[in-house]
Amino acid sequence: MTYELFYWPSIQGRGEFVRLALEEAGVDYVDVARGPKGVEKLMAALKEDARPAFAPPFLRVEGMTIGQTAAILMFIGERHGLAPNDPAGRIWTQQLQLTIADLVAEAHETHHPVGASLYYEDQQAEALRRAREFTAQRIPKFLGYFARVLGKQDYLLGQEVTYADLSLFQALEGLEYAFPKATAKELKRHPQLDELRRRVAGRPRIAAYLASDRRIPFNEEGIFRRYPELDI
Amino acid sequence: MTYELFYWPSIQGRGEFVRLALEEAGVDYVDVARGPKGVEKLMAALKEDARPAFAPPFLRVEGMTIGQTAAILMFIGERHGLAPNDPAGRIWTQQLQLTIADLVAEAHETHHPVGASLYYEDQQAEALRRAREFTAQRIPKFLGYFARVLGKQDYLLGQEVTYADLSLFQALEGLEYAFPKATAKELKRHPQLDELRRRVAGRPRIAAYLASDRRIPFNEEGIFRRYPELDI
Repeated sequence: MTYELFYWPSIQGRGEFVRLALEEAGVDYVDVARGPKGVEKLMAALKEDARPAFAPPFLRVEGMTIGQTAAILMFIGERHGLAPNDPAGRIWTQQLQLTIADLVAEAHETHHPVGASLYYEDQQAEALRRAREFTAQRIPKFLGYFARVLGKQDYLLGQEVTYADLSLFQALEGLEYAFPKATAKELKRHPQLDELRRRVAGRPRIAAYLASDRRIPFNEEGIFRRYPELDI
Repeated sequence: MTYELFYWPSIQGRGEFVRLALEEAGVDYVDVARGPKGVEKLMAALKEDARPAFAPPFLRVEGMTIGQTAAILMFIGERHGLAPNDPAGRIWTQQLQLTIADLVAEAHETHHPVGASLYYEDQQAEALRRAREFTAQRIPKFLGYFARVLGKQDYLLGQEVTYADLSLFQALEGLEYAFPKATAKELKRHPQLDELRRRVAGRPRIAAYLASDRRIPFNEEGIFRRYPELDI
């Protein structure tokens, strides 16, 4: 059984949350759009599926196509031991994932507050106002929330890593890349989040992935972009 | 067993997606914040939970607290026959719900493109640009997607109603309230979506709910706001 991941080939973006889960699960997968005629295959898949995804990322396995990052992670997590078995724990993991997704969406809005069909340069005035709100209000609120949930535990749910921990790691990496000053300030207030990040980065499969060329570097095409003027 | 729903008492907002599912399920529930000292109870619950929600709405039942609208709906849906039983159908329903959630979040961004901590009046210039993108690009893209998924079926998954249908009904009602011109144009292109909306509204429990005073009217405090200048 090989998973086929469909996502844009040149960015981490939302696909990265799925890549991290597949890597930690240690399963075989193909990052389709990074192979020959990859984007063509991605576009064709979007059109032909009986249960189509609205947008990448989406995952194909055993005749199913699953879209929406949080749904993909729930699926992978429950099949490969990256989520607890009890119903309450499963839904709590998904709830945390959806809150991380909200944070990620708001991070994207900082450089595209008017709309994704326009360039950043065409909405820079709006972006400056939005980023000020994000760094002053939203980063502290989200990171304060996750710090409270984490408490003195190793991972968000306790002793065992889940897909939500991998995603929080990725969100923190992204925030630090895009908003180094604002993020450093909050991580100083919540050192346990920085420890979680290091703990995830140190897991053998994640460490191997991060050191490989499968890990695309952050860049100014993805969700987390380093525009110094927005790090207020 | 009585469900306790915690949500702001004067708006439909995201809580309305949960109310619709509870009503269609025909279960006992209390809309806590609409009762005596309701908002106080909501604020206390947010602070005291061991597994806290990030924000309302959240649902309490049998000692569990579940936040995030899509997670709440998955939970209710699977317990009360508003989602299919097979794993592929369950995750497809959730995938559709998450795409509806994206549409709803973008509708909110039209009047708050800078941030939720500022009044609409303080971000009206940005809102005009954002709304133009939303009505020209995003409403057509989202409604085209759901029309494709629906096809000639009665409901998004076929013969049986799911929580995703209830949510799509609510999203269409909201879009029509907030953007009557832009929405009418798209519904004309996709009459099957209008039929779905009527089909949901005509379900006995939903019809009874909509006619009751439990249904809060749309207003300019919620997600879907009628600001005629934004209906471009």
